[in-house]
Amino acid sequence: MKTALIVYAHQSPASFNAAARDVAVQALTKQGYKVLVSDLYAMNFKASATAEDIKGDLKNPEHFIYNNEMMVAWQDGRLSDDIAEEQHKLEQAELVIFQFPLYWFSIPAIMKGWIDRVLTQGFAFTLQKMYDNGIFKAKKAILSFTTGGTESMFKPDGVHGDINVPLWPLQYTNWDAPNALY
Amino acid sequence: MKTALIVYAHQSPASFNAAARDVAVQALTKQGYKVLVSDLYAMNFKASATAEDIKGDLKNPEHFIYNNEMMVAWQDGRLSDDIAEEQHKLEQAELVIFQFPLYWFSIPAIMKGWIDRVLTQGFAFTLQKMYDNGIFKAKKAILSFTTGGTESMFKPDGVHGDINVPLWPLQYTNWDAPNALY
Repeated sequence: MKTALIVYAHQSPASFNAAARDVAVQALTKQGYKVLVSDLYAMNFKASATAEDIKGDLKNPEHFIYNNEMMVAWQDGRLSDDIAEEQHKLEQAELVIFQFPLYWFSIPAIMKGWIDRVLTQGFAFTLQKMYDNGIFKAKKAILSFTTGGTESMFKPDGVHGDINVPLWPLQYTNWDAPNALY
Repeated sequence: MKTALIVYAHQSPASFNAAARDVAVQALTKQGYKVLVSDLYAMNFKASATAEDIKGDLKNPEHFIYNNEMMVAWQDGRLSDDIAEEQHKLEQAELVIFQFPLYWFSIPAIMKGWIDRVLTQGFAFTLQKMYDNGIFKAKKAILSFTTGGTESMFKPDGVHGDINVPLWPLQYTNWDAPNALY
C-alpha cells in the first residue's frame, strides 16, 4: 500500500492549515494512500536537540556532540521512543508533506525540531549517501504553507522579496513544487 | 553603557561554540560592553509557539492565531515571563550575536524558537516599521556558527553549495558579515 506522511504544525483545529491537511488526507485516501499524520503541537513534540533523545550512556558525555551521539544511538537502537516512531513513519512514506504557517521565512521551531531530531545521520543520510545519491532519494516531499501575507509581498519586487529564496535551504534537493497559500 | 546580547545554543560547555562565546564575552567586555548571554539549552528555553506564551484570556481561543494573540498580549503586557525577559535583554542590546552549530543549513530548533517567540509583532516590527525602516534598524546582528564540515563543502562548487544561500533568509536585512567557523 502506498503511504503518505503529513508532518503538520498548527496549534488550532480551526485553522486554514488544518483545512489544508484535511483536504490532503481526503485526496490521498481517495487515491489509495494510507495517510499518516504527525500533529506536532497536539503531540507536544519536543523541539530541542538534547541528550534526552538518547537512551543509555553517552559516548562522550564530557564533550556532547548531538549529531555524533545520535548516529551511534541510531546504530544501537537507543534513540528515544518519539524519534524512533517518527523515523518508522518516515521509512514507510513515499510522499511527505510538510504543512505549516511560515514563521520568519521558514518552518516553525517545532517543525525544525522534527527535522533536527528525526533526520539522524545513518538513518536519513551518510556522508556517502546524500543529495542525488541520498538514502531517501525515491521519496517525494512537498512544502505546503500559509504566509500570512499577500502573494505580491513575496514577489521578486515585493517587500519580502522572492519567496523562492528563503525556501531554497528547505528544499535543497529534488522537491516537488511548493504549495504556497497566500 | 554599551550592551551586547549573545544568544547561544550549544548543549556542551566543552564545545567550540562555548569557546567562541567565551572569546566574544572577553573581547566585548574589554571594549567596554556589558555582555548579556542567553544560554538557551541551559535555560531549557521553550522552543514551540503555544498558547502558554500568553497570560490571561486569549482573544480568539476558537481560532488561535499565534502572531495575532502575541501582538495583543505584548500590547497588554501579558507575554510569558521568559519572553518578556528576552525582549528586555534585546531592547538594551546594540549588538546581538547568534552563536550556534549549523543544523540542517539553519539555526537549531531551540534558537528558531527564540526568533519565533521573542520577535513579537509590535515589539520587533510592525507592518509599517520593518527592514530599512525597522524598529531595531540601529542594532547590529551577527551570525557566528560552526558547520561540522569543511569550507570547500560550502563553496559554490562544493557538495552543499554556497553557504550564503541558506544564510540569506537568516540575514534578511543589513547584517554584519557572518562568522563561519569551518
